[in-house]
Amino acid sequence: MDAARIILGIDPGLAHTGWGVIEQCGSRLGCVAYGCVATPASQPLAERLLKIHHQVGAVIERFRPTCVGIETVWFGNNVTAAFATGQARGAALVACAEMGLSVGEYSPSQIKLAVVGEGTAEKEQVQYMVRHLLGLSRDPEPDHAADALAAAICHTTHEGKVFA
Amino acid sequence: MDAARIILGIDPGLAHTGWGVIEQCGSRLGCVAYGCVATPASQPLAERLLKIHHQVGAVIERFRPTCVGIETVWFGNNVTAAFATGQARGAALVACAEMGLSVGEYSPSQIKLAVVGEGTAEKEQVQYMVRHLLGLSRDPEPDHAADALAAAICHTTHEGKVFA
Repeated sequence: MDAARIILGIDPGLAHTGWGVIEQCGSRLGCVAYGCVATPASQPLAERLLKIHHQVGAVIERFRPTCVGIETVWFGNNVTAAFATGQARGAALVACAEMGLSVGEYSPSQIKLAVVGEGTAEKEQVQYMVRHLLGLSRDPEPDHAADALAAAICHTTHEGKVFA
Repeated sequence: MDAARIILGIDPGLAHTGWGVIEQCGSRLGCVAYGCVATPASQPLAERLLKIHHQVGAVIERFRPTCVGIETVWFGNNVTAAFATGQARGAALVACAEMGLSVGEYSPSQIKLAVVGEGTAEKEQVQYMVRHLLGLSRDPEPDHAADALAAAICHTTHEGKVFA
C-alpha cells in the first residue's frame, strides 16, 4: 500500500486567496479540506498580506502538506490586478517556503489539461472534474477554493508518481 | 531635545530590493544604514521571496524602525514586471506587518515632491537631494538603496512631525 501524500493548492488573490488540500494515495485522490482567506479592502494593505500569510501558514501547520501547486495567473493588460495579486502571491509563497514546501507553478492551460484533459476547457468543466476526481458530493465553493483544488490536482500529475 | 525616530524605506523588486534606514530628530535627518537584497533568477521563486522576507525582517530587527515608507511603482503596461515586483513587495510588507510597523505608500511623484520639491524631478536630482539631506559624502549605491532612502525621507514629511 502506498503512503498518502498531502498536497496544497493555492489560488492567490488580495481580496480572496483560495486554498485546497488533497490526499494522493497511489492513483486515488481525496479531498482533505478547502477554504478561502478573504481580506476586506478597508484594511491596510500590509495587514491584508499578513492575514494571507498567517492563514496559509495555519493551513500548512494543520494539514502538513509536503508540496504546493499554485496558479500562474494571466492578467491580459491589467497591471493593477497583476500587482495586487502578485503581492498576495508573495505573501502566500513566503509561508510555503518557511515551511519547506516544494512549489510547482502552473499556467491555467496546464491546470485545465491536467484536470479535464483539455487545455482550453471551460470553467464549469474544471469544476465538474474537480468534484468528480475528489469524490465530492457538491461543487467546492467559493470558486477560489475550487481553483485551488484544481492546482493541487495538477501538481499530482506533474510531480507525483501515480500508480495504477 | 526631541527623541529620534527611526524610519525604514523600501524599494521592492524581485531581483533587487533596496532598503534604507534613516533617523529623524526634530527637523534633522541622518542616514543610519542602507543596502540591497539581491536574489538570483536561478533560485526557485519561493526561495527568492523568502530571502527578501528574511532580510527585510533582519533589517527591522537590527535597526528597530517604527514605520516604513514604500514606493508604489508605476509599470506602464508591463504586466510581467508588475506581477514580479508585486510578489517581492508582498514578501517585504509581510515582514513589516509582522513587526508591527506602520506603512506609508507613496507614488514616485509624491517621493520626488518630498525630496526635491518637484513632482517631476529627474532621477539625478533625487539622488543629489538624498545625499544632501542625509549629509552623505557620496551617492548611496546601488540605485535601489538610494530610492529606498528617498521613500523613507518622503515618509518623514507625510507622517512625521518636523520641528524647526
